[in-house]
Amino acid sequence: EIVAAVEAHFADGPLQGKRILVTSGPTHEPIDPVRYIANRSSGAQGTAVARALASLGAHVVFVTGPADVPPPDGVEVVAVQSAREMADAVQAALPVDAGVFAAAVADWRVASASDRKLKKSKDGLPVLEFAENPDILKTVSRMEQGRPGLVVGFAAETNDVIENATAKRLRKGCDWIVANDVSPATGIMGGAENAVILISDTGAEEWPRMSKSDVATQLAERIAAKLVG
Amino acid sequence: EIVAAVEAHFADGPLQGKRILVTSGPTHEPIDPVRYIANRSSGAQGTAVARALASLGAHVVFVTGPADVPPPDGVEVVAVQSAREMADAVQAALPVDAGVFAAAVADWRVASASDRKLKKSKDGLPVLEFAENPDILKTVSRMEQGRPGLVVGFAAETNDVIENATAKRLRKGCDWIVANDVSPATGIMGGAENAVILISDTGAEEWPRMSKSDVATQLAERIAAKLVG
Repeated sequence: EIVAAVEAHFADGPLQGKRILVTSGPTHEPIDPVRYIANRSSGAQGTAVARALASLGAHVVFVTGPADVPPPDGVEVVAVQSAREMADAVQAALPVDAGVFAAAVADWRVASASDRKLKKSKDGLPVLEFAENPDILKTVSRMEQGRPGLVVGFAAETNDVIENATAKRLRKGCDWIVANDVSPATGIMGGAENAVILISDTGAEEWPRMSKSDVATQLAERIAAKLVG
Repeated sequence: EIVAAVEAHFADGPLQGKRILVTSGPTHEPIDPVRYIANRSSGAQGTAVARALASLGAHVVFVTGPADVPPPDGVEVVAVQSAREMADAVQAALPVDAGVFAAAVADWRVASASDRKLKKSKDGLPVLEFAENPDILKTVSRMEQGRPGLVVGFAAETNDVIENATAKRLRKGCDWIVANDVSPATGIMGGAENAVILISDTGAEEWPRMSKSDVATQLAERIAAKLVG
């Protein structure tokens, strides 16, 4: 009903009738019942992108890890914790016209997560064995059937941003990469602003530093131009 | 100035003139600039205890990790991230009349935290080596000079709660342990209620399940009775 109301409200947006998946936030990978491994992601940029796409009329499926910011109004929210849960939620959301993968997904999980709290005295220093998590962006980008018409990845880099993000785009097989420098000195991680570089098959386009909300609006407009332009 | 105002306001509380340290929240131990290990602690119980102590007139030094809930009004807030930062902040807060150690402090840190984001492609599965963090509760409990008159620890257990918490009290050397069962089925972790067992030299006293705020009020009253009663 909410979705219907929103779609009615934005029925005149350019993305009307388009179904777009947005992932956002960090994932939490359990070590034991009280400990986990997390990524530093507030979810602010992904949430802003979802809001901007919805405001252009898209039906947004918003798959979010445990973020600091609440999900936007007017989207279909699917809340998950771990990377594997996120991968399952993404599969369940398909097919979509476009996918924007803004979540900071853990590359690894703890292979032998414990059902009991590891005890300091008995267990000494932990030995954690890791296993690779599913690569959500790569899996969707390389779908042979039913691939979204546009797949947008994000790259959070701390050095050699353009080089690393360009390589990531080719490795994953996505269409665009929104790259940014999340080194602590930039204040971008957890902050209100972002300075992104949009990497596509035509090269790297540096956007001026602006609010995450403005980045989201511009990205949503680019997506609309690509899907319906 | 805020502290002065609060102390004036509560000048008639039984803990007037007492300086009490409360630690709260989780700690975050960095793996690299974008990943960290965390404990599942909302900070709700520690925050409630600090609020209750302040309302009885104490000057509360509130050393908090990155919690979900905001710190209470009327306390001196020291915000930290890692266990080592918390240990330093605790040392800096001494001497105190009592210390309540409600934080979920990481037992270990990553010994070789990386300045650069670990790359999936280049680095393969990570091998994390751990080092023991300082044991804040034990260190304060076993101070030979200047030990707080009352040291209260917390124990978050998932099994054999009384047995584990009783052993913890003896191992750490603290006076009281507030123990609870944080198994997911209890709903205590992240929830509004708590069911605690107060463990002291006279044994284990089970409190009925009640709000974290009521647990805090009762604990603060017990602390006041011990310090000034």
